[in-house]
Amino acid sequence: MAYKRLDYEKIKELTYRIFLAYGFTEEESSRITDVILSADLRGIESHGIQRLIRYHKAIKADEVDVHAQPETVFETPISAVIDAHGAMGQVVSYDAMERAIDMAKKSGIGIVTVRNSNHYGIAGYYALMAAKEDFMGVCMTNTEAIMVPTFSRRAMLGTNPIAVSMPADPVDFLFDAATTVVPRGKLEVYNKKEAPLPDGWAIDENGLECTDPARVLSNIINRAGGGILPLGGYGELHSGYKGYGFGMLCEIFTAIMSEGTTSNHKNDVSDTSHCFWAIDYGIFGDKCEIRQNFSRLLDEIRSAPLAEGADRIYIHGEKELESVDEKMRDGIPVNEKTFGELQLISDDLGIDYVPYIGAEF
Amino acid sequence: MAYKRLDYEKIKELTYRIFLAYGFTEEESSRITDVILSADLRGIESHGIQRLIRYHKAIKADEVDVHAQPETVFETPISAVIDAHGAMGQVVSYDAMERAIDMAKKSGIGIVTVRNSNHYGIAGYYALMAAKEDFMGVCMTNTEAIMVPTFSRRAMLGTNPIAVSMPADPVDFLFDAATTVVPRGKLEVYNKKEAPLPDGWAIDENGLECTDPARVLSNIINRAGGGILPLGGYGELHSGYKGYGFGMLCEIFTAIMSEGTTSNHKNDVSDTSHCFWAIDYGIFGDKCEIRQNFSRLLDEIRSAPLAEGADRIYIHGEKELESVDEKMRDGIPVNEKTFGELQLISDDLGIDYVPYIGAEF
Repeated sequence: MAYKRLDYEKIKELTYRIFLAYGFTEEESSRITDVILSADLRGIESHGIQRLIRYHKAIKADEVDVHAQPETVFETPISAVIDAHGAMGQVVSYDAMERAIDMAKKSGIGIVTVRNSNHYGIAGYYALMAAKEDFMGVCMTNTEAIMVPTFSRRAMLGTNPIAVSMPADPVDFLFDAATTVVPRGKLEVYNKKEAPLPDGWAIDENGLECTDPARVLSNIINRAGGGILPLGGYGELHSGYKGYGFGMLCEIFTAIMSEGTTSNHKNDVSDTSHCFWAIDYGIFGDKCEIRQNFSRLLDEIRSAPLAEGADRIYIHGEKELESVDEKMRDGIPVNEKTFGELQLISDDLGIDYVPYIGAEF
Repeated sequence: MAYKRLDYEKIKELTYRIFLAYGFTEEESSRITDVILSADLRGIESHGIQRLIRYHKAIKADEVDVHAQPETVFETPISAVIDAHGAMGQVVSYDAMERAIDMAKKSGIGIVTVRNSNHYGIAGYYALMAAKEDFMGVCMTNTEAIMVPTFSRRAMLGTNPIAVSMPADPVDFLFDAATTVVPRGKLEVYNKKEAPLPDGWAIDENGLECTDPARVLSNIINRAGGGILPLGGYGELHSGYKGYGFGMLCEIFTAIMSEGTTSNHKNDVSDTSHCFWAIDYGIFGDKCEIRQNFSRLLDEIRSAPLAEGADRIYIHGEKELESVDEKMRDGIPVNEKTFGELQLISDDLGIDYVPYIGAEF
């Protein structure tokens, strides 16, 4: 599919105007926009503006409530549980992480869980909010069921990503990973190319390994069984039950600890549960020393001997951060389909998109 | 190798006497024995009495200090950092998790990190201590470096297991997994059988995939490069960088948060760092409701449709718990080599082993 680079500031302004037009406040629109564009900047296209069309449909269908008033249903000095009442994921999540950070400032740690929310973008965004305060950050979300537990044929858990940030020099560590072996988007890429999937990615409706992306995707859409395998793949040979276990951790910290809807009962869009942790790592001693020790470990890994044929050893988050610099400078790559969706959404909301993205692809 | 079943109570008594003979107190000997035997009961032979010979050598070589006085070097109402001063891992770890539990009783959460400790047995043991108090438990440890980060050829992280318990009915959830694709013991099994390793388990000294177990093990022993791959395997195709990331989490919560020795600087035995979390999940609402919701999710997963050819879907910890019942009844399987080591250790300490395990294998 053809791609075109669009200026970051202009596309950001258009996205902001789109959310204003739905009825979000200026602050809310600005936050939502920042979360979405940060995905594009970091090279995570699946969670960037290509997702606007899905948000658009959800808002139009009232699956996302623009005027929802999230409510704190339980709290202690180190924890809170928020019922989002169908709010936009990014809106309630930004507040939830800010609250976790406030608790960490007072008590050393803050854990906020959220239920009845919606898709919130990239988990790493919120984990990094904590890192900016020189705290460790953890963020997880459940999703609609797509991961098939070891020895089953039915998807029971979501992609259930886990993100963890830890401040370091020169750049913060940021791990952000689905606990499935790959996200659904990767299957879609193989499907477009009409190429067989690698072994160990997906299973069919009978619970057997399947390398036909069209069949797996069709099964997922029709809830006909099968789905994506946990990190570690099929059966026990490569320890797929470990990915299944990490997916369970995410489910526990999100849906279970918020008394929300578990992945296997969720629909595609709403009823989403999240959690947000901020940890002042000063509860473990001198922050300068800890940060230095950690930065040294990262340096040692970066400069470890390379595997034959490899160019570089990455620290988690580095690749994405370098993408940010490049895309701020050269623009955000937008494909033809997404460009058309931006036009459609803008037309629907009465926004003149031409000053932002031009008239033609 | 030939196996023989030995009576659980008798082998427990012998193990207890062995640790008493080293100079541990009755309470310490009893705790160490319980941790070690719980591995055998749960079917995790690698961490059970077959490891006594390694503890024996370490204690004789003063790498483990029988009379060490662990010292609290930093503390807050929700956290503590302990310098174990070379104590037996099980001794300092039992105390550390008890302390985390005490903090959780008062403050809702308790996190204790430990440095300069030794091998502590199975991580799951300590996580379960929290579950017995109706708390969630988390336990991690670093180990000598054996995991090779994605695109490197040198082991930089340990097997770095992560254990998490969460109370449930009828049995508690207990996830306990190395963040490498497999532990070293699995390579040793293939080596004994002279069978090639599955793809995606290990790499050679050049950082390339290697299915020769003898070569990989020899490289590990001689620190010649290569090692075991992170969960997710080689390169990026099956997301090996995710296992590498989970290994980093473990390293952060153990060596970094205790200002201990990171895996890449550790020797085989000592300088080990751990962490112990107890979370009173009542900080997220009504405990009965949360426990019920979680137990229901586990039931739904247990009774999900099976993959073709599969017998059962396991919840993490179930298989091990069923092993406990069976081995309490039928005895602990001990192989000929371990039997000989028990004789050797007993002779060395002047203990008559015959009443406990018999005179001959």
